[in-house]
Amino acid sequence: MSSCKSRPDSLKGGDIAKNAFGASQQELNIQSVLQRIRYKLFIMSGKGGVGKSSVTVNTAAALAAKGFKVGILDVDIHGPSVPNLLGVKSGLEVDEKTQRICPAAYSENLFVVSMDSLLKDRDSAVLWRGPKKTAAIRQFVSDVEWGELDFLLIDSPPGTGDEHMTVLKTIPDALCVVVTTPQEVSLADVRKAINFLQYAQSNVLGIVENMSGLVCPHCGGEISLFKKGGGKELAERYGLPFLGAVPLDPATVVAADVGRPVVLLEGESHAKTGFLDLADKIVHACENSLEVIASVHA
Amino acid sequence: MSSCKSRPDSLKGGDIAKNAFGASQQELNIQSVLQRIRYKLFIMSGKGGVGKSSVTVNTAAALAAKGFKVGILDVDIHGPSVPNLLGVKSGLEVDEKTQRICPAAYSENLFVVSMDSLLKDRDSAVLWRGPKKTAAIRQFVSDVEWGELDFLLIDSPPGTGDEHMTVLKTIPDALCVVVTTPQEVSLADVRKAINFLQYAQSNVLGIVENMSGLVCPHCGGEISLFKKGGGKELAERYGLPFLGAVPLDPATVVAADVGRPVVLLEGESHAKTGFLDLADKIVHACENSLEVIASVHA
Repeated sequence: MSSCKSRPDSLKGGDIAKNAFGASQQELNIQSVLQRIRYKLFIMSGKGGVGKSSVTVNTAAALAAKGFKVGILDVDIHGPSVPNLLGVKSGLEVDEKTQRICPAAYSENLFVVSMDSLLKDRDSAVLWRGPKKTAAIRQFVSDVEWGELDFLLIDSPPGTGDEHMTVLKTIPDALCVVVTTPQEVSLADVRKAINFLQYAQSNVLGIVENMSGLVCPHCGGEISLFKKGGGKELAERYGLPFLGAVPLDPATVVAADVGRPVVLLEGESHAKTGFLDLADKIVHACENSLEVIASVHA
Repeated sequence: MSSCKSRPDSLKGGDIAKNAFGASQQELNIQSVLQRIRYKLFIMSGKGGVGKSSVTVNTAAALAAKGFKVGILDVDIHGPSVPNLLGVKSGLEVDEKTQRICPAAYSENLFVVSMDSLLKDRDSAVLWRGPKKTAAIRQFVSDVEWGELDFLLIDSPPGTGDEHMTVLKTIPDALCVVVTTPQEVSLADVRKAINFLQYAQSNVLGIVENMSGLVCPHCGGEISLFKKGGGKELAERYGLPFLGAVPLDPATVVAADVGRPVVLLEGESHAKTGFLDLADKIVHACENSLEVIASVHA
C-alpha cells in the first residue's frame, strides 16, 4: 500500500455522486470486488444504540486475531462510530496507479473504510438525502481495493432505510447479522428489521443479543438493566439461529472511549468473553450458511 | 371527541402522500394548527438508543401531571417507540364532520399521535424513502386536531435525516431538546446534531444527559457504565443550556415494558426523580426562550 498517498478531488465532500462511474462499468467493478470476499456480513439492527458498531468492531477484531483477513465498511454516513471505536483517525488514501481507495490498516489482518473519511469536519452533520447516499455506498463497494478477504463486515445505520436497501441490492449474498438488546422496546423494532429482511429475501445469519445482563463490579450481584433472554426468544420464535449474548460491561465503554476493541484489551472481562464466543459462532454459522446458499442455487 | 369513529381510506397504508392537500391549503392548515400550540419541543439525538423516546414520554407525562395540556407526535416511521412506551394500542380515529385526525387520549391532559398508526402490521418495516416521509409528516402536522396545547413534543428518529429537515422547515419556532448519553461515542454524534441545528438556524432549548450513572440496586455502589457528565460538559462547551441528567435505572425498563412512563409509577426511583426535575427545567427554559425569540423577532 506504499503507493497510497493522496486523496483525489472526486472524493472530497459531497461531489461523489456526480463522479460515480457509469452503471455498467461500476457493476463490473462491484462484482470483481465482491468475488474476492468470501463472507459479507451485514450487521444491522432495528433500533439504534443497541451496540451494533461495538458488535462489528469486536467481531472483526476477534476474527482478525484468529488469523482471518477482515475488512470493515461503515456505511452509516449520519453517525459513523467505527473510526472512533477503533481509534482510526486517518482519511482515505488512493492508489496512484489504479486510482482505487485503499482501506486504512488497523492491523496486519484488519482493514477499515468509513464514510467518516468523506467529512472535512468530523463534527459536521451530513445532510445527504437518499439517492446521494445510494450513489456513495455503491461507489464505496466498487472502488475500494480490499484484495482477498475472508470476511467483510458492513456496519449500517439503525432501521431499514435507503442504506439497507442499497447494500442488500448491491451485495445479494450478504449474510445479515441482526443485533438487538433484550428489552421489549428494542425487540419490537428488531421484528420490523427481520420482516424487512424476509421481504427482501435476504440471508439472515442469525440474531445477537447485546447488553444482555450486567454484573455489579462491586458486589457481583446481577442487575436486570435491560433484561436478558429476549433476543434468544425472538430467534427461536422466528426459527433463526441465535449467535450469542454479550453482557453489558463497563469495560466496553472504557474500550470504546480509548478507541480499542474490548477483545484486544489485556485482562479478562465479561464482554471480552462474550465477543470471542460470538466470533466463533459466526465463523461456524458462515460455514453452514454457505452450504445452504450453495444448495439453494444448485 | 365522540364523533371520532372511523379511519378514512386516505389514511390506509402508503397512500397518504397521494392524498395530501394542495400545498397552499395545507400550509394554511399547518399555520392554524401550530398557532394554537404554545411550545413545540423537537426531541432529537445524534445517536439512536440514547432513550430519546423515553425522555419524550416521561417529560410529556410529567408536564401533563402538572396540569399542562400536552401532545406527543411521533414522526419516527421506521421505529416508533412512543405507542409501546405508553401502552397505546389503538389506531387513529377521524372526526366525521371535520375529517380531521383525533389524537389518542392517554389521560385527560395527554394526547398522542404516532406514525405507528399507519401500519397495518406493527411488526412490518416501513420502506418509504425520503419524499414520501416528508409528505406524511406534513400531513400529520396539518391534519391533526390537537386543539389548544401548552406543549407539543415531537419525537424523531436518530440522526439528521429527511424527517428532521421536514420538521424544522414545517415548524420554524420548534425548540430543540438534544438528548445524549455521557460516553464519547454518543457525544461525537450529538455534536453533529448540534452543528446541523446551528446550520439550520434552529432554536436549541438545551441538552439532556440520559443514562447518566447507575446505582447498584443490591449494594448501592456507583457503576460507571456509560460514564457521567459528558452531556453537561458538551452543553458548556457549546454555550447551550443543560436541562438535566437522568440516571440509568432498572425501573425505566420495567416501566417501558409495561407501557407506563416511569414518572407515573408508584414509589420513588432515581429515574422518576430525574425526569420530574427535567420537566421543571424544561418549563423554565421554554418560558425564557419565548422571551429570547420574541426579542429577536421584535
